[in-house]
Amino acid sequence: MTLNPGFTGGTLDRADHLRTDDAALSAMRADASARVLLLEGLDPLTGEDGGIGWRPVVAADTAKDLLFLGLDAGEPRFAALEPSGPRSGSMAVLQLLHRLPAAQVALYAAARSLVDWHYRHGFCARCGASTVVFRGGWGRRCDSCKAEHFPRVDPVVIMLAEHGDRVLLGRQPQFPPRMYSALAGFIEPGESLEEAVARELHEEAGVRALSVRYVLSQPWPFPSSLMIGCIAPVEHDLIRLDTNELQDAIWLSREEVRAVLRGEPGARIMTPPPLAIAHSLLQAWAAD
Amino acid sequence: MTLNPGFTGGTLDRADHLRTDDAALSAMRADASARVLLLEGLDPLTGEDGGIGWRPVVAADTAKDLLFLGLDAGEPRFAALEPSGPRSGSMAVLQLLHRLPAAQVALYAAARSLVDWHYRHGFCARCGASTVVFRGGWGRRCDSCKAEHFPRVDPVVIMLAEHGDRVLLGRQPQFPPRMYSALAGFIEPGESLEEAVARELHEEAGVRALSVRYVLSQPWPFPSSLMIGCIAPVEHDLIRLDTNELQDAIWLSREEVRAVLRGEPGARIMTPPPLAIAHSLLQAWAAD
Repeated sequence: MTLNPGFTGGTLDRADHLRTDDAALSAMRADASARVLLLEGLDPLTGEDGGIGWRPVVAADTAKDLLFLGLDAGEPRFAALEPSGPRSGSMAVLQLLHRLPAAQVALYAAARSLVDWHYRHGFCARCGASTVVFRGGWGRRCDSCKAEHFPRVDPVVIMLAEHGDRVLLGRQPQFPPRMYSALAGFIEPGESLEEAVARELHEEAGVRALSVRYVLSQPWPFPSSLMIGCIAPVEHDLIRLDTNELQDAIWLSREEVRAVLRGEPGARIMTPPPLAIAHSLLQAWAAD
Repeated sequence: MTLNPGFTGGTLDRADHLRTDDAALSAMRADASARVLLLEGLDPLTGEDGGIGWRPVVAADTAKDLLFLGLDAGEPRFAALEPSGPRSGSMAVLQLLHRLPAAQVALYAAARSLVDWHYRHGFCARCGASTVVFRGGWGRRCDSCKAEHFPRVDPVVIMLAEHGDRVLLGRQPQFPPRMYSALAGFIEPGESLEEAVARELHEEAGVRALSVRYVLSQPWPFPSSLMIGCIAPVEHDLIRLDTNELQDAIWLSREEVRAVLRGEPGARIMTPPPLAIAHSLLQAWAAD
């Protein structure tokens, strides 16, 4: 089956070679077709057509606060760092994003992660001095100690433990009622993704992975994760729950998962919405 | 074939639940079986048996500078942050690491990335204040703005473009003579790993990926990457080189790759050594 994980399918040309070309950046800012993403804090504002909104570049957009997102059919696209105003966003944007075309959702995801990274990294982690934007918005430089800092992407494994014809889903205390999802955790220094899958399954549910099969990946812009979706056959189905992480964990059969994905009223649980990789991962497994 | 990518195969129990348990951390530091990794800067020092060296915990090891690596058959293992002394390492350690068992190499990789992260992140990126170690060494906390910071892992895609029965290898100017490797690049915010593979292949070599197949992953502790190895069939074999990134790129047939991996004197090129994922990726492709 064809999977279209959430936040993928972007069509912007990131044009990496232009990020270090100051003359090209200046020319693009002055281009009549240049547009700046409309944000309120980190949330998108919609335009007249109901899609992601844009505005022209204005005099108040200083070079140092415009981040070059890329080219849309040759037309420059930017996001702006606001000197004041909110620097946060809401998960309620998912409601809007679910209605938008994939390319717009992907573009917003990249912009949101990048803008948020700047807001949370104004200072040099090496020496504590303040830093400035460079590389057209794809880095910050410390003029004091000369360190260069780049936008952070945190790799996360998210996985279905599989035993016979069933998969393991877990529930965190803060989830909405009846919602269960795949187990997940950050990959740590010194681990392969397969090792991180095995460690997390053992830590959170006490199950031992026999092997790990990569399935799909997606970015998750809250704030900036790379979600790596896997399926791992495990050696037994006895759950030993880490109650600091999970409130409950259950095994679901393929038929039960299919009923959940069809949204049947009598389905045993609810899953995360289609933009979440857990949804795509369950779709992939259910279609097997 | 069974692949054993470099820096994987660790056997230490990271015992995540103990990191936040101050009483347990104190008891482990005082345990007679506790050991601290011997480092000179970021390089490992060998013990009497020629393996990774260890020393007992001493009075000068303050709680705040001991990082809890995990348990080795129940025995606590730490790395120490040195208040003074070198904070750098040498790539020459690869010569030593090639001779050590996988579990020791993996343990060193995790410790090196963690120690180095602390050295480069003494200050809060959000407010510029100095930060302190918490979570047994797996984080830094800002007592000024209350931000929490966690060790960074940078996901990197490394891939073989494939056309017919040949794969594409590139050469960076700083490589040793005759060495070629798989193309690679950092995954950016807002990308899936498949999208990053396609972008990098197009940017660096002008080839268009038709699909992307995940093969294997490994950590790379210089300083802290997650290497994600893929193979991507591409639509044509015409190379358009980005000469800012690569000095040369060539197509190698499966027979040529096999000769290179066997180390034949007449082989067309040299590849990175076995600890590098490019080596394992070529092995996987050559065995297909």
